[in-house]
Amino acid sequence: MARISADDRGFLYGDGLFEAIRVHDARPFLWEWHMMRFTDGAVSLGIALPQTTESLLGNVHELIRRNSMSESVMRIALSRGIGERGYGVTGEEQPTLLITQHSPPTTPAKPLSLVSTSARVAIGDPLAKVKSANKLGSILAKRDAANQGADDGFILNSDGNVTETSSANLFWVEGRTLRTPPVSDGVLPGVTRRLVVGLASALGQPVREESVAPERLQQADAVFVTSAATGVIAVGQVDGAALGTHPLVCQLQDAYDAELARHAAAGD
Amino acid sequence: MARISADDRGFLYGDGLFEAIRVHDARPFLWEWHMMRFTDGAVSLGIALPQTTESLLGNVHELIRRNSMSESVMRIALSRGIGERGYGVTGEEQPTLLITQHSPPTTPAKPLSLVSTSARVAIGDPLAKVKSANKLGSILAKRDAANQGADDGFILNSDGNVTETSSANLFWVEGRTLRTPPVSDGVLPGVTRRLVVGLASALGQPVREESVAPERLQQADAVFVTSAATGVIAVGQVDGAALGTHPLVCQLQDAYDAELARHAAAGD
Repeated sequence: MARISADDRGFLYGDGLFEAIRVHDARPFLWEWHMMRFTDGAVSLGIALPQTTESLLGNVHELIRRNSMSESVMRIALSRGIGERGYGVTGEEQPTLLITQHSPPTTPAKPLSLVSTSARVAIGDPLAKVKSANKLGSILAKRDAANQGADDGFILNSDGNVTETSSANLFWVEGRTLRTPPVSDGVLPGVTRRLVVGLASALGQPVREESVAPERLQQADAVFVTSAATGVIAVGQVDGAALGTHPLVCQLQDAYDAELARHAAAGD
Repeated sequence: MARISADDRGFLYGDGLFEAIRVHDARPFLWEWHMMRFTDGAVSLGIALPQTTESLLGNVHELIRRNSMSESVMRIALSRGIGERGYGVTGEEQPTLLITQHSPPTTPAKPLSLVSTSARVAIGDPLAKVKSANKLGSILAKRDAANQGADDGFILNSDGNVTETSSANLFWVEGRTLRTPPVSDGVLPGVTRRLVVGLASALGQPVREESVAPERLQQADAVFVTSAATGVIAVGQVDGAALGTHPLVCQLQDAYDAELARHAAAGD
């Protein structure tokens, strides 16, 4: 089992970031988009990437080959490594890069139940856009949800609006439009969120970005969430209120699956 | 050098908390207050303490003896350890406890220059009260400050008010009153903050809790910060505006030093 120094700032302060990438048919899905977010996040945190994304891709392919795991989730984590004590950074740190491969999570058998939780993010927090290793907000959302008997929970922003769940972006159908909260509300710009926005547009359903309170979601025609690990997942309940279904959710699930298959066939 | 598993949730998610305790004359200062915050934080995060605070104190004393470091800062860190993948917790995790001892930071030679930064905390975030291992906000505040040529920076809350610096609580003198932001503004309830409130009260200067914008601090009669590592430190500049001095700051520094000496002599 891999071990790291107890002085690694990843362990001391959660001083790092990561990507979780779907691997299908032995190929990482949406690799370029993941790498854009990863490298942008590293710049934001001021952590130097120890190798190029091209070299990273070589490592990823080697790991898939050695593990013989063609269906999986690849986790690429970068921490600032060992540095001076305290919160100051010098730029002399030796970052730690760790690539691990995991079984894909099982797709939920039925629509998710989601609830509001005590997890909060400040509007304007520049860290909200980074998939960082500071994940206590997500852990709190998930724990709060479990305590309420729900599958997952919302992280709310300082205006009381919904940003995302512990690990997925949020979409809802209201009337004839498909909507999702804007990144400026404190939303992590999800790679699968981005894909789904494109797929919806191709289906003639452009996505409108709009802030949303949890109560409004209870009245939605349909709600679903998206993540790299599990794709498009329907939501059946928000804060105890049962939600209906909408053909658009199935259409987007099909479009997502088709894109995944196309990617595998094309070898891109 | 101590090593931990790369699967430790402390490294994966910053899923843990810590205390940094001043050791003077071979005794941990304000031990009970640190332990109250530590155990309350562990309960909040749902991490089981692997041993009693009494047993922890035994370890701390043994470390002081073995290292022959009677003047130092003791760091006690607890992470949730190795668990299931993802943000969910089961309660079956084996927490990681790590106690390390460090040279005390040098006291700044001159009053600090502080600046506003892009670091944000949401009002109402239950994690703000926990000295957790999610410290990217503090790292960002410190980096932003360094980029502006300042010693340290403010973390602002979602209302735009000052909560604290990257590693210290804030007080200011305005007219005849001493003030500090309330914990409900998103402030970590500092152990030295608590001590200074008591010392000020004993000097006939009860502390008033009040929200404060950075601009208002520029007009203050005096500003100072408090932390377990460095005690009471004067601030000479806020966002470029020079600040005066006030006798109360020196009085509180003297009272802090006296308390530290008394603690050592009393053996408590």
